[in-house]
Amino acid sequence: MYRLFHYWRSSSSWRVRFALDFKGIPYEPVAVSLLNGESESPEHLSRNPLGTVPVLEIPGTPASLLSESLAILHFLEEAHPDLPCLLPGTPLERARIRMLAELINSGIQPFHNPPVLAQHSADPVEQKSWAAGFIEKGLHAYESHCKKTHGLYSVGDAPSIADACLIPQLYSAERFEVDWRAFPVISGVETNLRALPAYQSSHAERFKPLDFKG
Amino acid sequence: MYRLFHYWRSSSSWRVRFALDFKGIPYEPVAVSLLNGESESPEHLSRNPLGTVPVLEIPGTPASLLSESLAILHFLEEAHPDLPCLLPGTPLERARIRMLAELINSGIQPFHNPPVLAQHSADPVEQKSWAAGFIEKGLHAYESHCKKTHGLYSVGDAPSIADACLIPQLYSAERFEVDWRAFPVISGVETNLRALPAYQSSHAERFKPLDFKG
Repeated sequence: MYRLFHYWRSSSSWRVRFALDFKGIPYEPVAVSLLNGESESPEHLSRNPLGTVPVLEIPGTPASLLSESLAILHFLEEAHPDLPCLLPGTPLERARIRMLAELINSGIQPFHNPPVLAQHSADPVEQKSWAAGFIEKGLHAYESHCKKTHGLYSVGDAPSIADACLIPQLYSAERFEVDWRAFPVISGVETNLRALPAYQSSHAERFKPLDFKG
Repeated sequence: MYRLFHYWRSSSSWRVRFALDFKGIPYEPVAVSLLNGESESPEHLSRNPLGTVPVLEIPGTPASLLSESLAILHFLEEAHPDLPCLLPGTPLERARIRMLAELINSGIQPFHNPPVLAQHSADPVEQKSWAAGFIEKGLHAYESHCKKTHGLYSVGDAPSIADACLIPQLYSAERFEVDWRAFPVISGVETNLRALPAYQSSHAERFKPLDFKG
């Protein structure tokens, strides 16, 4: 069985939880905190020398370790072509899906990762303002693209890896007080995503430690 | 014919120039400066609301515009399956290629993008130190992975999109005074990459404006 090293509030982790659940692939979640030094421990650095989550352990002899959420999402597509697909369509439609996924993956999320926020500034107010600026600009761009590509979901009428990235990005936006409901296309897509069983089962709040104070 | 909106020193642009040349796909390069406001002009924002390069214009009626370098690299693979490939191998080998590409794309490059540097600090010394920290840590992780995956190139004996990301990242590392030659596996791979005609033809210095002062 797959093991997923993840953190409940890591948006990159949630992308992979969503994809596993959407495809109906069982997995064992293993929590790695981004806040108490666990992700920078020798044990986790041996899984991923960058110290990030998620990391997917792929069963085998020996087992393989795969980091970077977009690489994991693509691996799940290619290793399980018989299961429900998150990269449908023509090469151009798939390109638009990847464009939206990367807009979040490289254009928004890197800037609100907790270690990056700490490196940018020790002031929580400045941290929040810095993160919110990237989220606001990124979601504006996502909305602009999505006006042309959306159906029920971000690209057409089927959920995709773009939506797998959008779901947790909106949750993070709330934490940094960015009002994503001001974007009408994104809001409509979010309503449809929220109705998916995989949205519910992969949700950050389901994996939040009971004693978490944040 | 494809048109590529790019900037000579943008590492994400160089990735796509390399892939186009490696595959032997002719294209028309169109320069968009990241320094003089051109990338934030209404004209460029209509191509890409995030204001980044590269943007690939795909001929058609109407033409399509595609941003995000990793989405473009994947599109070129899928649209031209008959041309030399930058994503070879099994699903697991392809996953390792994508992991390394994403390590650079979302783990290093976002932090040394000129607009991000300007938002982090107005002090050029602090900008350089911030960027160098991410590059150093990211290349350390790349080297650790690459010890297990490399042959002549980053993953096995064929060039891949991981190498397309590595080439310009090393060029950027030099600008921020990170000594990537301290990483022996990366250095060996770089020597082999440097010998490829596509390395030479896509090189940033070939697209540098003659009057550039930097």
